Amino acid sequence: MNVGVAGLGLIGGSFAKTMKENGITVYGYDINESSYLAAKMTHAVDERLTADTIGLCDIIIVCLYPSAAVDYIKENAHLIKKGAVITDTCGTKRYICESISGVADKQGFYFIGCHPMAGTQYSGFSHSKPTLFKGASMIMCPGNTPLDITENTKQFFISLGFGSVVFCTPEFHDSQIAFTSQLAHVVSNAYIKSPAAQEHKGFSAGSYKDLTRVARLNPSMWAELFLENRENICREIDTIIDELKKYSDAIKADDKEELEKLLADGVAKKLSAENRK
Amino acid sequence: MNVGVAGLGLIGGSFAKTMKENGITVYGYDINESSYLAAKMTHAVDERLTADTIGLCDIIIVCLYPSAAVDYIKENAHLIKKGAVITDTCGTKRYICESISGVADKQGFYFIGCHPMAGTQYSGFSHSKPTLFKGASMIMCPGNTPLDITENTKQFFISLGFGSVVFCTPEFHDSQIAFTSQLAHVVSNAYIKSPAAQEHKGFSAGSYKDLTRVARLNPSMWAELFLENRENICREIDTIIDELKKYSDAIKADDKEELEKLLADGVAKKLSAENRK
Repeated sequence: MNVGVAGLGLIGGSFAKTMKENGITVYGYDINESSYLAAKMTHAVDERLTADTIGLCDIIIVCLYPSAAVDYIKENAHLIKKGAVITDTCGTKRYICESISGVADKQGFYFIGCHPMAGTQYSGFSHSKPTLFKGASMIMCPGNTPLDITENTKQFFISLGFGSVVFCTPEFHDSQIAFTSQLAHVVSNAYIKSPAAQEHKGFSAGSYKDLTRVARLNPSMWAELFLENRENICREIDTIIDELKKYSDAIKADDKEELEKLLADGVAKKLSAENRK
Repeated sequence: MNVGVAGLGLIGGSFAKTMKENGITVYGYDINESSYLAAKMTHAVDERLTADTIGLCDIIIVCLYPSAAVDYIKENAHLIKKGAVITDTCGTKRYICESISGVADKQGFYFIGCHPMAGTQYSGFSHSKPTLFKGASMIMCPGNTPLDITENTKQFFISLGFGSVVFCTPEFHDSQIAFTSQLAHVVSNAYIKSPAAQEHKGFSAGSYKDLTRVARLNPSMWAELFLENRENICREIDTIIDELKKYSDAIKADDKEELEKLLADGVAKKLSAENRK
């Protein structure tokens, strides 16, 4: 099998390395020549993914920011093999699925919007690794892709080490991801802005480390993702602001009963969420 | 050396187990007989800490909620050996240090307010372990305790596995801990209250797990800690609310430049805070 990877950063590099460990022929592309060369020198890719080789690929995984991913697919659509499966790894799904579905139908390839639930606070090929997706969940938005093609693509991801696959609409993905991922990054990035953050030596343990780990993010990528998912992420930010106010109000009013109730409600919701996993 | 441990929960139980591994004679007390028996049966304590044995102790570590810790020390003050060192492990320090310093002076023992930077989202003796404090930071508020006594107590904690000791005033402790620990618990507990939390199966990765880990907390203990540290924790909650609003406003205004600036500022503050560790 020949697979193309467009964008050799943390995610694309990890896909390339994982696939090489599985004996797949990998064609790679990155706008930064140094990233391509690093991938080539470490045997994460076999050859360049170019206008000459893209037509050889059975699957192409586009690991670029959403707008760049849309541009890349549109520009290369006429070169893609009929019946090939094109996927992406963007953190929002409505934008890319809406932008590409017409192009895919017209050119005779299949587009399945994908989002691997894996990552780190670091970016770039140098942080990529063949174990990044091990046991992770893969979200797939197959739209009107035929069932056999969808199933084959699911099995392809499972063979790379993903632990499970979730199918959903782009709309459900974007609503849910605003909470599980986007809000986490906003809150972590906001948390660190307290003046106290600069004097915490010796005063921090696990909870502080957990809350601020993803404060270190890629600003341009996340800004794009937030703006593509505006109403969902704003709903989640405004929800947590409203909830936080309740604790602040109860503490200011010295209302121990209300405060305990708020905290116990959070514990109950945490346990309930865990049980639904 | 004889050491007393009052309160055999997660923290007290871990102190008892750690001390037994270091050959110290441990006297233990817990209001729940089952906790004491579990400690006795697992050889985490040698004997009961009672009115008859408390006077044998060179050090007593009071691992109770703040108000219960104050009550315990006051009620037993007349039984404590002159020159003994009494410490606690409460998450706030002004309240207990102010409440106990006069009693200690009058009875001729030393009180050093302490707060180990270690814990988990679980509580109770069954979760205690002799490795809980390994490499952790210990915060000590020695007040006017003589330097040699303070130094000996520091060395005692280091011998139990603590990686470092930080000395500060109760005021600085309470201001700082509101940010590093209390705010983390409030934010995590508030985070889980989004309706989306109940449908996240397959949509979560590391960032979600990190943000919601300590949502599972002990409501009555944390309510007490928050109310004892009212102005500091409210300042921190109100600060993060103000910061979160800025992201929400920038997203609603579709202002990519401002949004990237907010995110990049968070990254810079995270890196700066890391470098000060």
